[in-house]
Amino acid sequence: MKQYKELSPPPRTIMTPGPVEVDPRVLRALSYPILGQFDPAFTELMNETMEMLRGLFVTDNQWCYPIDGTSRSGLEAVLVSIIEPGDRVLVPIYGRFGHLLTEIAERCGGEVMTLETEWGTVFDPEQVKEAIREFRPAIVAMVHGETSTGCMQPLREIGHFCREQDVLLVVDAVATIGGVPLYVDDWKLDAVIGGTQKCLSVPSGMAPITYNERIERKILARKSIERGLRAPGDEINSRRISSNYFDLAQLQDYWSPARLNHHTEATSMLYGLREGLRILHQEGLEARFERHRQNGAAIVAGVKAMGLELFGGDEHRLPVVTCIEIPAGIDGESVRSMLLDDFGIEIASSFGPLKGRIWRIGSMGYSSSRKNVLHVLGALEATLIYHGMQLPAGAGVQAALAIYAGKEEVVC
Amino acid sequence: MKQYKELSPPPRTIMTPGPVEVDPRVLRALSYPILGQFDPAFTELMNETMEMLRGLFVTDNQWCYPIDGTSRSGLEAVLVSIIEPGDRVLVPIYGRFGHLLTEIAERCGGEVMTLETEWGTVFDPEQVKEAIREFRPAIVAMVHGETSTGCMQPLREIGHFCREQDVLLVVDAVATIGGVPLYVDDWKLDAVIGGTQKCLSVPSGMAPITYNERIERKILARKSIERGLRAPGDEINSRRISSNYFDLAQLQDYWSPARLNHHTEATSMLYGLREGLRILHQEGLEARFERHRQNGAAIVAGVKAMGLELFGGDEHRLPVVTCIEIPAGIDGESVRSMLLDDFGIEIASSFGPLKGRIWRIGSMGYSSSRKNVLHVLGALEATLIYHGMQLPAGAGVQAALAIYAGKEEVVC
Repeated sequence: MKQYKELSPPPRTIMTPGPVEVDPRVLRALSYPILGQFDPAFTELMNETMEMLRGLFVTDNQWCYPIDGTSRSGLEAVLVSIIEPGDRVLVPIYGRFGHLLTEIAERCGGEVMTLETEWGTVFDPEQVKEAIREFRPAIVAMVHGETSTGCMQPLREIGHFCREQDVLLVVDAVATIGGVPLYVDDWKLDAVIGGTQKCLSVPSGMAPITYNERIERKILARKSIERGLRAPGDEINSRRISSNYFDLAQLQDYWSPARLNHHTEATSMLYGLREGLRILHQEGLEARFERHRQNGAAIVAGVKAMGLELFGGDEHRLPVVTCIEIPAGIDGESVRSMLLDDFGIEIASSFGPLKGRIWRIGSMGYSSSRKNVLHVLGALEATLIYHGMQLPAGAGVQAALAIYAGKEEVVC
Repeated sequence: MKQYKELSPPPRTIMTPGPVEVDPRVLRALSYPILGQFDPAFTELMNETMEMLRGLFVTDNQWCYPIDGTSRSGLEAVLVSIIEPGDRVLVPIYGRFGHLLTEIAERCGGEVMTLETEWGTVFDPEQVKEAIREFRPAIVAMVHGETSTGCMQPLREIGHFCREQDVLLVVDAVATIGGVPLYVDDWKLDAVIGGTQKCLSVPSGMAPITYNERIERKILARKSIERGLRAPGDEINSRRISSNYFDLAQLQDYWSPARLNHHTEATSMLYGLREGLRILHQEGLEARFERHRQNGAAIVAGVKAMGLELFGGDEHRLPVVTCIEIPAGIDGESVRSMLLDDFGIEIASSFGPLKGRIWRIGSMGYSSSRKNVLHVLGALEATLIYHGMQLPAGAGVQAALAIYAGKEEVVC
């Protein structure tokens, strides 16, 4: 057998829209010896995690727990559990991840209507309300923060309208949860899916979700305990959820005191998520939002001072992802490679119509720090000069420092 | 916000059929800083993991990679990717996890025929062959090692017959992979799903799978690149896989040099899996099987010497799970609680018809050690005496020591 080297990942400053750097406390939590999934010491950790998730989502919902898979597993778990074949689903799309919601909803057998707006813009809530009035969907699914375009959709008005119209609203908050204000109960969001590897700074591999009684009613109407656990003679529900792994009706039993056996909980990831949530609550949700806002503003100020153009409007900018137009004549991938190879900094490109057109700089979770922001601005400037661009040397970092010093009004 | 305590899991000797203790080297790997998923340093680790998985499965298959979810996510990924509505699927059931395969296959829309044998027994391959001749399935799905009953199904003859008959054979090797001989190519298994949290001693949260060209042909016939990534005008495949997260046609592109964006790979779990596989290859596959066999034999000898009855026959015993009849008059759950609370040892009960009837002692991966075996036998004896059972004090541990000293013929 070939000899494989000792694990020794190179040091990286990860300034992408996820995955981002993991808080060292979370990394340490991952390294603790595991417990059995029904060990009382472990089920207590599961319960604490549920409690802390309620604080994260700012909700009184009973159901707040992680799906054991990456972020899109959470999206699929919610959608497959509530969409029955033929259910009308409206998906307003303003970037790549709206397409993903559409794709999943279609695969679930939903009758999907989409609404699209140009990448770099978001919807006027009135447009979404109009489409709801017209299409009469059972479910609206949309993205809170689109990392592909760096835009954020205001949701409160849409949430209240959906509630009035008795439409279920499902929100992909993978990119925003824990970094940007999102208030599940106040905005009347019925189900929300978060991500771990972005503003929570926990590795990818779990997807925290929450949902209310409106969603639960739909799920329970489709409940069917699996073979091998159900009592002999129990009927199979003809509306049974097509996935077993993502069957929220069974998963909520697993996360309830009944602890109905389903999968084997991912212990180490649960340790990591719990520690990530402890850190978040110790920092305080509002203080955390402010930190993300300020570091995003510093990047924006720095990038503008360098003479680069931002992509998308100012009004609905996602504070944790800054999208920059790649200047004419500059090879975007060459800049990214140099940042990685020489400065140990990872930034991202984008997808679809924006591929090769923009760079994306993330400032999420543990990566959202003054140290990282100043490092990436300095390195970007040096790399652009190296690539032959004319720019006011030194201005980017100074502009960011001015933000931190409170000398410039923070607009982000 | 309530203050949550620093993570500090109590020390445990985990002797269940999974999850089991994690090798400290794997725990350390989990604690390394993460890398971005498209960082060349990370994709190299992904490629190395695929290579090492080929050694684990003893296969030349191109496709060997983990699904980002717990073991049953691997089962569902394979089944949902190959079962189309109406496909005939045969599932021979000899314990709980055969029921799970049935459940998943039914939810995928398969026309499922089951074959059942009493828990504690396995199938004569001739019975399975007869059912194949009769039912003419497209797919046979079965379990290699049933942790619920401690039995192991011989698969080589069934594998060769399926190949002759052009039937796809899918094997759940969650409990056996890395601990018990399993040779994917030699046995002609078309798709195999392993688990991390058992004989590999990596935490739960990933499911390594492998499949050959026969499976790949079926998957590719159903391929449909998701919205947002597919070229405008690309047709949607009418046979499209109903899950996006478990769509192996897209996942294999993600794991190929094309690196087509799908989910965000679970970095830390990938670090852990890679380290678990390095440890396995350093020990050597055959040496590892022998270690598991010997520790299983020592438990069997010890338990018998204590005067306890084993559940199930000797011939098809799964060497990594020892099932013990709970003696009349003994409260099985009280014994388990005392083992946990006083000795820090976790053993398991079972499911369905065996609930309350048997205990199950696992000896898997890092937990399959002489130290652990001797500790659990001594503690079990003390606990049974404490519960009022008459038994030959000291005999259990001595019988196990005799196995290790080579004084007793090892029959397991």
